[in-house]
Amino acid sequence: MKKTSKGSLGVVETKYFTFNEPLKLECGKTLSPVTVAYETYGNLNAENTNAVLILHAFSGDAHAAGYHKGEEKPGWWNDMIGPGKAFDTDKYFVVCPNIIGGCRGSTGPSSVNPATGRPYGLDFPIITVSDMVNAQKKLIDHLGIKKLLSVSGGSMGGMQALQWVANHPQAVKTCIPVAATLKHSPQQIAFDEVGRQAVMADSDWNNGEYYGGKQPERGLSIARMIGHITYMSDQSMEDKFSRKLKNDIYSFSFRSDFEVEGYLRYRGDSFVKRFDANSYLYITKAMDYYDLSDGKLFASGKNMDTRFLVISFKSDWLYPSYQSKEIVQVLRGRQADVTYCEINSTYGHDAFLLEVEDQSKLIRSFLERASRK
Amino acid sequence: MKKTSKGSLGVVETKYFTFNEPLKLECGKTLSPVTVAYETYGNLNAENTNAVLILHAFSGDAHAAGYHKGEEKPGWWNDMIGPGKAFDTDKYFVVCPNIIGGCRGSTGPSSVNPATGRPYGLDFPIITVSDMVNAQKKLIDHLGIKKLLSVSGGSMGGMQALQWVANHPQAVKTCIPVAATLKHSPQQIAFDEVGRQAVMADSDWNNGEYYGGKQPERGLSIARMIGHITYMSDQSMEDKFSRKLKNDIYSFSFRSDFEVEGYLRYRGDSFVKRFDANSYLYITKAMDYYDLSDGKLFASGKNMDTRFLVISFKSDWLYPSYQSKEIVQVLRGRQADVTYCEINSTYGHDAFLLEVEDQSKLIRSFLERASRK
Repeated sequence: MKKTSKGSLGVVETKYFTFNEPLKLECGKTLSPVTVAYETYGNLNAENTNAVLILHAFSGDAHAAGYHKGEEKPGWWNDMIGPGKAFDTDKYFVVCPNIIGGCRGSTGPSSVNPATGRPYGLDFPIITVSDMVNAQKKLIDHLGIKKLLSVSGGSMGGMQALQWVANHPQAVKTCIPVAATLKHSPQQIAFDEVGRQAVMADSDWNNGEYYGGKQPERGLSIARMIGHITYMSDQSMEDKFSRKLKNDIYSFSFRSDFEVEGYLRYRGDSFVKRFDANSYLYITKAMDYYDLSDGKLFASGKNMDTRFLVISFKSDWLYPSYQSKEIVQVLRGRQADVTYCEINSTYGHDAFLLEVEDQSKLIRSFLERASRK
Repeated sequence: MKKTSKGSLGVVETKYFTFNEPLKLECGKTLSPVTVAYETYGNLNAENTNAVLILHAFSGDAHAAGYHKGEEKPGWWNDMIGPGKAFDTDKYFVVCPNIIGGCRGSTGPSSVNPATGRPYGLDFPIITVSDMVNAQKKLIDHLGIKKLLSVSGGSMGGMQALQWVANHPQAVKTCIPVAATLKHSPQQIAFDEVGRQAVMADSDWNNGEYYGGKQPERGLSIARMIGHITYMSDQSMEDKFSRKLKNDIYSFSFRSDFEVEGYLRYRGDSFVKRFDANSYLYITKAMDYYDLSDGKLFASGKNMDTRFLVISFKSDWLYPSYQSKEIVQVLRGRQADVTYCEINSTYGHDAFLLEVEDQSKLIRSFLERASRK
């Protein structure tokens, strides 16, 4: 049985931390109260020096590893987090928070606005990756952690990891951005914008006021379908689907003929069941605003003693390797201690979830060195 | 003034050819009557041996070159077609038809269904690239051309050019597929399917019965925005837009902040003014069904004496060079006479419209050799 298999964390639970002190946001507004949903795995040592902060990608959540009671599917990075795994919970205290702006337990546009007693909708302030990180800092303070052994995550998780270094360099011993970037390129912004337009074009979106009624399901589903194309590679789609038909012959209609069409529709349909359309808008906007280029990674002006392991994947065309190389270049320009590795993979951007073995080797030894000195 | 500049065709007009003999379609149905809109440039020689058939891409039309009366914008391949240009109208008789299924003069879903007296809508039969080509063959017969000196086009135009060789090998002396493929890959099908879903998700689509009312503008605009991302390259978007803002500061709203967002919205909005949403569905479906792999390029079983010039562009990720190389490989496997060139360009798929000089050199000398022997 999966839940008791070797290396598994077994059953885990999401916890919630709420702070009332207003969180000052980049847009100039404040947010209060703020709840951060999070999970922890393993134990904090007596010196509070073995904490690893894991940050999730766009549609992830606090449930990074182990199993929720009664569920068959483990957390989204279960292959990487657990006893004996890359983020070894026998050694490290792993913390994974849900981002603010999201819809999986942390405060976001679907949360109740205390000023009105109804869900925020578009009254929720625009948040940035920096705001997400500053909310996470409150949680880390609350947990009694002064310096994180490491911050890591893939995709938007990697952007948050870098933003941690920019905002709180003294609190980060090492940083492992995976399949990430210093800033969203126009192509990345373009894909996000098309997704937002698809959501907002759906008449059920109703200017963000659909709570209690029907979600803009069709629009959100289309946005997610676009996303899925960008998460895979041309090669991985060919390997998985090629031109395989759902039935033996062309339907000569607008029904879906090809397996790839059925797959995309399925992924779109299942996404709308677990994700809030307004969160889709807020989080993509946060990513588009994200920009740590032009010295902003070193905004504090302090010396950089954080050490880095930067990982990218060869077939990732959404966050291509050249963007990870830009991170490396900027860090080397400031004499930071950086290791870079491009992992050979055909999985595209999804590789950060799938290429467990190569990532594990790199991360395991990097963390071991980090905990020694 | 543009219209009288050296090398320009000046004012041109679209013509129409209608045949009543039912066109047998791949889906098993027939279509009648069929109108093919087309333009011609230059003069057919006495032997009828200097005709070049130009086939347009997804959203193109019969207006490939010159100017329509009163219009500022020339035809879509004006840089390539005209006196002294690659397709030199001083030497060749150039014919460019609009595809059936389209909405620019040839019979398509927005045409009147003679059975009902109203636009076809979804009663229009599903057409394929092969059906498009067979309708074009009627036009070519009508013009008295037994053998085309060349068939050429970019993108879906290149697919039609190859389909001409598959369907009517004796009628094609040379073939120049540009930025094309032997078959749509799952990624290409996926992008098409998301576009179709965006159109069909728009409540104004109304199961294809919107003629006389409001077009599904938002859905069609989103589909086109996705398309535009795939037509450009990561590099060309960076060169054109980078992270330039429309105003100096972030709006901290869901208005479009970045120039790339404004550009995409503009392209989406202008597309819906000239294109029919149902044609979007029919033409993308035709492309997805298109498959000349596994020997189907040689379906006639006849010897292949057509000569080929295959052109691709380095940064084209929608129809990547490896797909053109697959065409070349299949042709060489049948001892066909093939020249292949990958043009170094950063423009992505749009390069077939923009890289005039390199394409012109290749095509001009290829056609000169072709007309000599």
